[in-house]
Amino acid sequence: MTIITGVRVHDVRFPTSLSLDGSDAMNKDGDYSAAYVVLETDDPRLTGCGFTFTIGRGNDLCVEAARQRAQPLIGRSVESMTASLGEVYRELASDSQLRWLGPEKGVVHLAMAAVMNAVWDLAARRAGKPLWRLLAEMSPEELVDAADLRYLSDALTRDEAIEMLVQMAPTRSERIETLDARGGYPCYTTSAGWLGYDDQKLTRLLQQAMDDGYRHFKLKVGGDLHEDVRRLGIARDVIGWESELMLDANQVWDVPEAIDWVSELSRFKPLWIEEPTNPDDVLGHAAIRAAVAPVGVATGEHGMNRVLFKQMFQAKALDYCQLDAARLASVNEVIAVYLMAKKFGVPVCPHAGGVGLCELVQHLSIFDYVAVSGTLENRVTEYVDHLHEHFVDPCIVVDGNYLLPTQPGYSAEIYEDSVSTYAFPNGTYWAARLAMADAG
Amino acid sequence: MTIITGVRVHDVRFPTSLSLDGSDAMNKDGDYSAAYVVLETDDPRLTGCGFTFTIGRGNDLCVEAARQRAQPLIGRSVESMTASLGEVYRELASDSQLRWLGPEKGVVHLAMAAVMNAVWDLAARRAGKPLWRLLAEMSPEELVDAADLRYLSDALTRDEAIEMLVQMAPTRSERIETLDARGGYPCYTTSAGWLGYDDQKLTRLLQQAMDDGYRHFKLKVGGDLHEDVRRLGIARDVIGWESELMLDANQVWDVPEAIDWVSELSRFKPLWIEEPTNPDDVLGHAAIRAAVAPVGVATGEHGMNRVLFKQMFQAKALDYCQLDAARLASVNEVIAVYLMAKKFGVPVCPHAGGVGLCELVQHLSIFDYVAVSGTLENRVTEYVDHLHEHFVDPCIVVDGNYLLPTQPGYSAEIYEDSVSTYAFPNGTYWAARLAMADAG
Repeated sequence: MTIITGVRVHDVRFPTSLSLDGSDAMNKDGDYSAAYVVLETDDPRLTGCGFTFTIGRGNDLCVEAARQRAQPLIGRSVESMTASLGEVYRELASDSQLRWLGPEKGVVHLAMAAVMNAVWDLAARRAGKPLWRLLAEMSPEELVDAADLRYLSDALTRDEAIEMLVQMAPTRSERIETLDARGGYPCYTTSAGWLGYDDQKLTRLLQQAMDDGYRHFKLKVGGDLHEDVRRLGIARDVIGWESELMLDANQVWDVPEAIDWVSELSRFKPLWIEEPTNPDDVLGHAAIRAAVAPVGVATGEHGMNRVLFKQMFQAKALDYCQLDAARLASVNEVIAVYLMAKKFGVPVCPHAGGVGLCELVQHLSIFDYVAVSGTLENRVTEYVDHLHEHFVDPCIVVDGNYLLPTQPGYSAEIYEDSVSTYAFPNGTYWAARLAMADAG
Repeated sequence: MTIITGVRVHDVRFPTSLSLDGSDAMNKDGDYSAAYVVLETDDPRLTGCGFTFTIGRGNDLCVEAARQRAQPLIGRSVESMTASLGEVYRELASDSQLRWLGPEKGVVHLAMAAVMNAVWDLAARRAGKPLWRLLAEMSPEELVDAADLRYLSDALTRDEAIEMLVQMAPTRSERIETLDARGGYPCYTTSAGWLGYDDQKLTRLLQQAMDDGYRHFKLKVGGDLHEDVRRLGIARDVIGWESELMLDANQVWDVPEAIDWVSELSRFKPLWIEEPTNPDDVLGHAAIRAAVAPVGVATGEHGMNRVLFKQMFQAKALDYCQLDAARLASVNEVIAVYLMAKKFGVPVCPHAGGVGLCELVQHLSIFDYVAVSGTLENRVTEYVDHLHEHFVDPCIVVDGNYLLPTQPGYSAEIYEDSVSTYAFPNGTYWAARLAMADAG
């Protein structure tokens, strides 16, 4: 029997604000950060790593919340825990005092994601499989037992969920072969389009991405309409009209403003407008979608929990569901959203970027194709090319596809060196920078 | 000129779990707590006090978040701040790094409530008026400038908001007189109906509340259907059929289960079912409302922000809006919800109880009647009779009415003695109890 002996939670912050990587109309100067959880066991070769993603200040709140969330895990047997991943999740989620602080949203939910992501990593490592394969080898009943279906029965019953998975089960292995043969799971790049980049950098990065094999490109919009028109013109000049262009407004508009602005940009034939308004506004997204078609509506990186996504599906508010692997409360809640998306016929194109989100979502997208949706149609997963060097098992993208991960786990482990350098505020990087700021 | 010189934030926890005060189907053992903010100025007679309410563990997260939220206030002039309460609010809310952790929900939003509640308390004290009167003497434009209308324009424009307030402005003083004459603002009591109380205690407390002049009574339900039927029978025996009975399920049901369960209880003719399902589920509440009428649907104590309430109104999901003065981001966001409620014709019956919520909502209800809705019809504000002894200016209820507060401020100040006794974990009460637990 292997026992969880301790939990370490680290406040890791990368100084991305210095280069304006990640700048958009809402978030101008984020330091991409992770509240990074390491579950330790009495087997020195076995740990579980997970995280949630934030953009700087307040990452310490998630760290402390994760510490509190993870306390009940200490002393448990890894075997009993990994045998019933739904039960562990439900027990942690039912802490009524922490629940009050959400419920199931904000800091306590982000912390739940960090902790349960680490539990899933531990389960996959113990099984000696990459997470996507662990999931792809679970039975329909096991998957549904792990999924958090609470509050969803008006949209999806347990029986319906099992039935959908049963139908896809016999052909799972064929789809794994298909992915291998086609060189992985398709992705698109956001690396070129941050608002803080100048025209020259934009042009160069788009051209480079074209050369690298990408055919989907996302640009940030919403700062200034004339600027947007100019930048989209440049983008179409570089990528042509055969490639897909996606737009991301990062929540800057009210509903009527979103409709007007997107209408102005529709001549650039965008595939989707992402986060056109407040992420909580189900009915607002539905109204925008009805008004701006054929431009699609996409949202989800701030989709707080499965109850929000349920309503997005019920209200026909989305063309693309962009769930976030570190904002939803780990695989347990993610499976529930994938199941609903399947029932409502909405493609899931997960949000990625940030710190390590690409590493996580590659597993989820592959799992979706293999065991849930069974299709790649209209599906393309985000890829952003930064911070991968800090991960022990980084995702690998070749010709616009995520290669299938092969190492055991959820690819969530950060190098100890990176942690000790970028731990805030006492890691070597921040200690030196803060000392310089004090001296300056 | 008066300057904000510092901010203290205290983690205050009252050991209510010992007596099962506050027990319900979801929250069985809360220790009612406040993340309590005190803004200090260079005038020793002038401070601003505010708080958010939690039920124990994790209150420390709100304390730390409030500390971070309040930092930008230090060094400002009180005069400039109180002259533009909308601007201060928008500046604090626009911190994009903290915003990422919600946005506008969970711990960072609760912290925003605590800090801005303190700012409003400071503004009212400086003006020498109770908060309700400060608000009732603001012009329509001033109120709308203070209100957070972001993301609401598809439901309520600035011009509509001003117009509604202008219409009520000439008769504000008449309504203040009416309230004075009728002995205050009507309330109901929840003190009798907690799930953890036995039949004898339930009977005694209901009878006592009848004797005290109450005609609205709320009982917790949702633990066990047969128990609920038995307890509601007892309640109707004591209060008769002329008084109003309200039910509160504290989010325990899925949507279909809520519809079935409430249908079973409808023979007791409840005025409303409160929190029948997940608080984020706008469409679920709308479905329940359509199914259980004439039983009304009420929710809001976990209503995370104005965007949720906007949709509740748009979807016709609510018969009663129970906004929470310490979960919404203070008066700025509360005004926006009151304005939308007025436009959509939904009565607001604020959530109270907890720590100090009664002290806050009395001001809001009075303001609503005087300046916004102009009516008491279908309106009754919650009152729970505990923990008032810790407040310097406690609310006073006589014959089922909140008397109009007369002291300057938002009635949010907690006695220093109470803070030093119940500060967690080092206040005298907790230090002794934790030492005993260690020894035992």
